[in-house]
Amino acid sequence: MLGQDFEQIVKLLSKLPGVGSRSARRMMLHMLNNKDGVMLPLSDALRQAAETIESCEICHTLDTGSPCSLCRSPQRNRRAICVVETVADLWALERTGYFKGLYHVLGGSLSALDDIGPDDLHIPHLRQRIEQDGVEEVIIALNATIDGQTTAHYISEVISSTGVKITRLARGVPMGSALDYLDDNTLITAMNSRSAV
Amino acid sequence: MLGQDFEQIVKLLSKLPGVGSRSARRMMLHMLNNKDGVMLPLSDALRQAAETIESCEICHTLDTGSPCSLCRSPQRNRRAICVVETVADLWALERTGYFKGLYHVLGGSLSALDDIGPDDLHIPHLRQRIEQDGVEEVIIALNATIDGQTTAHYISEVISSTGVKITRLARGVPMGSALDYLDDNTLITAMNSRSAV
Repeated sequence: MLGQDFEQIVKLLSKLPGVGSRSARRMMLHMLNNKDGVMLPLSDALRQAAETIESCEICHTLDTGSPCSLCRSPQRNRRAICVVETVADLWALERTGYFKGLYHVLGGSLSALDDIGPDDLHIPHLRQRIEQDGVEEVIIALNATIDGQTTAHYISEVISSTGVKITRLARGVPMGSALDYLDDNTLITAMNSRSAV
Repeated sequence: MLGQDFEQIVKLLSKLPGVGSRSARRMMLHMLNNKDGVMLPLSDALRQAAETIESCEICHTLDTGSPCSLCRSPQRNRRAICVVETVADLWALERTGYFKGLYHVLGGSLSALDDIGPDDLHIPHLRQRIEQDGVEEVIIALNATIDGQTTAHYISEVISSTGVKITRLARGVPMGSALDYLDDNTLITAMNSRSAV
């Protein structure tokens, strides 16, 4: 029913996370009504980003140029590395502006189901960085899921022989949450790790 | 925190309907991990569509070339025109494959709040088409909202003097719905317009 140009865009937009064919159609109509404001600038920005953004050879995040701006920055503390699963996790931590060290993006978590092993995750490279760059602390900030925790366990085994200090994010009650709605495991962990007032 | 290239894409994607800054970031990461499969083809498709897709001078739908393929098709019944608000509505009707006439896309509905008057909606052009092209029936297929119904009422007043037959979509219980969950107005309309079995 639609022309080939339409169908191609709908097909490509539908590949994006959270977009189905109906919302892809709505997006396309919105863009066709704003060609100069959205459609053409987006086309240019996508091409530009595809050509300039690459994976950092040190921490594996995405940025224009490698090493990335974080790894190049003289303001960052090179003695601490925070290990995260994805670039989105790195961004979430950077949004807080609290951590001032460097990162190491694994690119996922170990998963037998998806056939993802240690070599797919830049884990050997992490050990290499610790040994070469005089790293003092590795903060493991992986998701609190089964796969995330398996990966955290594996990483701490692999790097423990370097003698580096290994820490992980605290577990407990998230800010602003009602106890009533929390799952049992979170409550148990929070009770177990209680601190003096 | 993010580079300028990132921020530009996130800003543009956030302008699309149903996309916030968080989902825009997820989309961008997905595209950066699939440059050749999604990002570059999407950039090309958007540019191509922006350059080739235009508004049909007859029915005001969007298509490659004007008049559009529907208005050019010898298979369509030129004696019936279906009036819709948006191109999305036209597509919804075309998906059913039931209606074989032509369309007239208003481009919205009359709205005092948004300052949209008859001249913004191709209504004079609709009257002109009816008079020039020997149209026998105008099917008003506008949304069953206040604005849609105001517009429908206005259109039927404007075109009634041409003597054309004016119809509108039936009102009633939608297929597959449970009476229990329907609003009162739909139930009253369905009861009022009941038909013999």
